[in-house]
Amino acid sequence: MIDPVVATRGDVLATARTQLDLAKLVLCDVDGCLVESDALCAGAAAFVARHGERLRLVTNNSTMTAAALSAYLGTLGLDVPAARCFLAGEMALAYTRDHYPGLRVLAVATLAIRRQAEALGLHLTDARPDVVVLCNDPMLDIERLQQVITAAHCGVPVIVANPDRWRPDRAGTPLIETGTLLAALRAAVPRATVTIVGKPSLEMFRRALEGVSPTDAVMVGDNRETDVAGAERLGITAIHIGRSREAIAPQLLDLMER
Amino acid sequence: MIDPVVATRGDVLATARTQLDLAKLVLCDVDGCLVESDALCAGAAAFVARHGERLRLVTNNSTMTAAALSAYLGTLGLDVPAARCFLAGEMALAYTRDHYPGLRVLAVATLAIRRQAEALGLHLTDARPDVVVLCNDPMLDIERLQQVITAAHCGVPVIVANPDRWRPDRAGTPLIETGTLLAALRAAVPRATVTIVGKPSLEMFRRALEGVSPTDAVMVGDNRETDVAGAERLGITAIHIGRSREAIAPQLLDLMER
Repeated sequence: MIDPVVATRGDVLATARTQLDLAKLVLCDVDGCLVESDALCAGAAAFVARHGERLRLVTNNSTMTAAALSAYLGTLGLDVPAARCFLAGEMALAYTRDHYPGLRVLAVATLAIRRQAEALGLHLTDARPDVVVLCNDPMLDIERLQQVITAAHCGVPVIVANPDRWRPDRAGTPLIETGTLLAALRAAVPRATVTIVGKPSLEMFRRALEGVSPTDAVMVGDNRETDVAGAERLGITAIHIGRSREAIAPQLLDLMER
Repeated sequence: MIDPVVATRGDVLATARTQLDLAKLVLCDVDGCLVESDALCAGAAAFVARHGERLRLVTNNSTMTAAALSAYLGTLGLDVPAARCFLAGEMALAYTRDHYPGLRVLAVATLAIRRQAEALGLHLTDARPDVVVLCNDPMLDIERLQQVITAAHCGVPVIVANPDRWRPDRAGTPLIETGTLLAALRAAVPRATVTIVGKPSLEMFRRALEGVSPTDAVMVGDNRETDVAGAERLGITAIHIGRSREAIAPQLLDLMER
């Protein structure tokens, strides 16, 4: 990341633009970068158009499938095929399929993600699971949360889509994310066996790189802990935008040539 | 508390029995001491009979009223009038009435506790509360939890019945308690304004003392953090029983004369 203390704001933005232009692959977060409260962020359309096929979206979204995200972005005027969308929820399913083949899975997730789980061949169950997948679920009730706690207490591993504790709506109000549910789980079962799959886990970035070297990629995101730290640990240059004081610019618009 | 390292187990129990006999007031926890998984713990009936009117129950229960707890204990053969039962949930309501008179209250609580709130004159609301009361609620859904998070984010104070993260069922499985919900709240809103009312808060013990000096009272409980530490901070002698290694005996039966 560029040090905003020793460089002027103009220098920093110019360097970021050059890095974006030179990159073989541009990774970008979705919530808070491209979209907020179901509306495009300033510069999102131009950013997506500019980077075209070099662009991959890397999001801790755990409620949608890639196909649904692509379609949703389409309704907002952004053209990003599903094959270029990498989502933490889907990745948690793939991780579970790869690491716990054939076992019974309790999935805390939206109907869309549970259907996707079945499409991937996962054997979903409500009782006595061998593994738990914890995604964000706006329909979660406390009975289901208790099932997760009971399973974790019995030593069942829990695959968590992402560690985000909240995501902001447009007014900045924190909306419950998977990490809030994880905090509840850890309060009840401190010794729970937890694997986090989404950003900042390296696996998430590795999948999105798809064979491109980390040094040939740039990640743009608004979250210091998940987007920036995660990418940099893998050697990917990170560009931090958003409301945070550490961000080099408030929005994607600032990364576009004027 | 008696030091179990320098005294033999027999000495320790004899001292505890003497302390109980000499006390003007015997305070006792409910879950894990008198009752577990809807059955009496060993020695509970004899303990309640022996201490009679000197006995007060001090529990972090936030789902029942004192009247309901008294009636429930009656079904198990324990005679403890409601006036001698002090519950964290009811206390959170009383605290709210005293400190936020006339304001609109969002109560996360069972129907019984919400009815009790109305009986106390609290003005319950679902939207735009001035204060939140957070009790345990087996019917809680994520939408209601989001309402709490949104309110706390907007600076609304949250009165939490107790900090217990779980309570065990008979098999030792952790069941969700108010503290699990508090952990979720704090994950989403780290700067939430939180007041905890139940044990180990001193207010809980002060109410149960009812004018008796702390040095004339003994507290029996199975939780080091809430029962023992809370009582001792107020100068009440605490007798720690239960499964913990620090406990002087597994159950109330061991505190009775043979």
